[in-house]
Amino acid sequence: MKKIDGWVTSPKGFEAAGVKAGIKVSGNHDIALIYSTVPAATGAVFTQNKMCAAPVLVSREVAANPYVQAIAINSGCANACTGEQGLEDARKMQAIAAELLDLEPNSVYVCSTGVIGQFLPMDKIEAGFVAAEEVLSEEGGEDCAKAIQTTDTFIKHVGYETIIDDKTVTVAGIAKGAGMIHPNMATMLTFLTTDAAIAPDVLKAMTKKIADKSFNMVVVDGDTSTNDTMIILANGLAENEIIISEEHPDYQAVYDLMLACAQELAKLIAHDGEGATKFLEVNVVGAATWEDAKTAAMAIAKSPLVKTAFFGQDPNWGRIVCAAGYSGAEMDSSKVNLEIGNIRLVESGMNCNVALEKLAPVMSEHDISLTIDLGVGKEEATVWTCDFSYEYVKINGEYHT
Amino acid sequence: MKKIDGWVTSPKGFEAAGVKAGIKVSGNHDIALIYSTVPAATGAVFTQNKMCAAPVLVSREVAANPYVQAIAINSGCANACTGEQGLEDARKMQAIAAELLDLEPNSVYVCSTGVIGQFLPMDKIEAGFVAAEEVLSEEGGEDCAKAIQTTDTFIKHVGYETIIDDKTVTVAGIAKGAGMIHPNMATMLTFLTTDAAIAPDVLKAMTKKIADKSFNMVVVDGDTSTNDTMIILANGLAENEIIISEEHPDYQAVYDLMLACAQELAKLIAHDGEGATKFLEVNVVGAATWEDAKTAAMAIAKSPLVKTAFFGQDPNWGRIVCAAGYSGAEMDSSKVNLEIGNIRLVESGMNCNVALEKLAPVMSEHDISLTIDLGVGKEEATVWTCDFSYEYVKINGEYHT
Repeated sequence: MKKIDGWVTSPKGFEAAGVKAGIKVSGNHDIALIYSTVPAATGAVFTQNKMCAAPVLVSREVAANPYVQAIAINSGCANACTGEQGLEDARKMQAIAAELLDLEPNSVYVCSTGVIGQFLPMDKIEAGFVAAEEVLSEEGGEDCAKAIQTTDTFIKHVGYETIIDDKTVTVAGIAKGAGMIHPNMATMLTFLTTDAAIAPDVLKAMTKKIADKSFNMVVVDGDTSTNDTMIILANGLAENEIIISEEHPDYQAVYDLMLACAQELAKLIAHDGEGATKFLEVNVVGAATWEDAKTAAMAIAKSPLVKTAFFGQDPNWGRIVCAAGYSGAEMDSSKVNLEIGNIRLVESGMNCNVALEKLAPVMSEHDISLTIDLGVGKEEATVWTCDFSYEYVKINGEYHT
Repeated sequence: MKKIDGWVTSPKGFEAAGVKAGIKVSGNHDIALIYSTVPAATGAVFTQNKMCAAPVLVSREVAANPYVQAIAINSGCANACTGEQGLEDARKMQAIAAELLDLEPNSVYVCSTGVIGQFLPMDKIEAGFVAAEEVLSEEGGEDCAKAIQTTDTFIKHVGYETIIDDKTVTVAGIAKGAGMIHPNMATMLTFLTTDAAIAPDVLKAMTKKIADKSFNMVVVDGDTSTNDTMIILANGLAENEIIISEEHPDYQAVYDLMLACAQELAKLIAHDGEGATKFLEVNVVGAATWEDAKTAAMAIAKSPLVKTAFFGQDPNWGRIVCAAGYSGAEMDSSKVNLEIGNIRLVESGMNCNVALEKLAPVMSEHDISLTIDLGVGKEEATVWTCDFSYEYVKINGEYHT
């Protein structure tokens, strides 16, 4: 597997575009198109928020198709909490993009991200997609990635390729993240493209597995958005032998490529958590079940007390152990071990009295890893998160409704 | 029911003390005693954190008694994550206080709050209780309240009295709060005293009910402490006819007194949330069940996005509706209504487009109430919380381990 400078246009047969349509107050890119020149197998996962946005309702129908061909996206307005009109607008946005691309509406996903509770400015949406279609090309990957951002501070894009059946198979992806990140299905918006040949039903099952091991293991603030969406398009143009089951000899290679892209995007989202000054990897080992390991890791990763301690570079291990304790995960308080970096702070549930000076170099790093052993089993899980800073409060106290 | 300037010494037959024993680095009061001159019926609830502190283990045994007589408390050191030695220290602290008061150890609760992972400085603990016992009196209520604080910015104390059977019955209480406040049983430390005559088994059941309607409805940061404890002592010296069942005609009057005290203390804890600039009352109505109403209210109250929005005085109702949506509570997105203050912002799931200027006066208040109608039933619940400010990050980023 080889890492590449990947964009959604890196796999064969994908074109993309990103344009400025005036939806964002900032005037930045806000309309994006991703297009496969041939029908692509698809899998997708969506937010489980009961107040899910109109485009999610529409895209859920699209995801039921075996093959689709495009994704139409806007940022700056989430089209959430917009009732019947919001649903009509989402369908209209889908129809506009479909007509421009000469596709059936039902083979075009629609995604929106931005402010909740406002109607889509349909004039700008229409003009934006007209402009986007005009510049749609294999060179449009970067503009497309720009156009899906909101409070992101950097563009999140990845790509990997490998050889399968003597063919080069490529997977690439982009994501937007930053706030309202919580793993109750997928992340904010993530799009993976690949030229791998894979049967639609195999891809749909794989999509869920990939999400569970990547975007569902990231938490910034514990808030599950109304619009979270992860979509995979696989158009088969790499011409590997089509993967028609999990038992196919090339299944694992394609899964590994997808997972590598998804996990890297997931970590980038944590890196770019709103106001983040630290990237934290929370490893839970010695758990009775994988669910328990994830539950404990999530409790630690979501704890404002833990997150502010890391912001303050304070190795306040009591808060970490405490969060595991209230998570509900089974644990043996007399067997708990905790390490930050490679320094053991708690052994058998008790303070190791490590000198603060010894920990200072670890705590001053940007990327910090901690591992807690619950002392009751052999299962483990890893969650990625960031710290909680003054800047998080500033960004979210001043973001305009 | 009449509100009084209450301390734990306000009910008949209670004495208290608070002294400076040098456990806190600040040099402030850190050893407290609460003493009933006669055996008092008791009820208590404790943290459900699996990493619960040593004093919680000891006090759980004490709570099994029908009658007890004292509570021995220290602040500055939580005696949590301290293993076997911590347990020995907690038992020793209990024995020290018991001997000074000429009681059986098993009739003395022990409570600790402060930094996790450090052993109790037993020399200071012993000298502190010797000093506290010397000044134990009916005038010691205020010093006692001071001695249970950690990052609190004001002393939390309440009292109510009423006439039952021609006798004045008084309930009073103190609490410490501020951080690691989350309702997985009781709050940090709360002690209620009363001279009401009530049978131990009736009081024990009442204690759980009171906690569920007061401290379990407060959230500051979502972290459940290792030390949360709520204890009620009822010594019967008011000489009302003893309440031996829930059917007793005076049961409700005593329950109301207790609940009034507990709810007021609970609200004071939210008022004094670490770094709080706002007190928020989150009302959920129209829920299918009380549990759903509480679940949705808690999700809103815990959401960092909601809390930072209130800090920024930004009526970002999308985040409120979104939090209810991911809470798991049953709701009908097309019937959701939301009001902040008395201004309706969302009707039938849609934006009412209220001008920001109209909301500015409400958002600038210190105390803000919001009400969300889930549109599916008749149950309701109220949760109290505070906003999330720069100061929260400062306090918790710089609190020393």
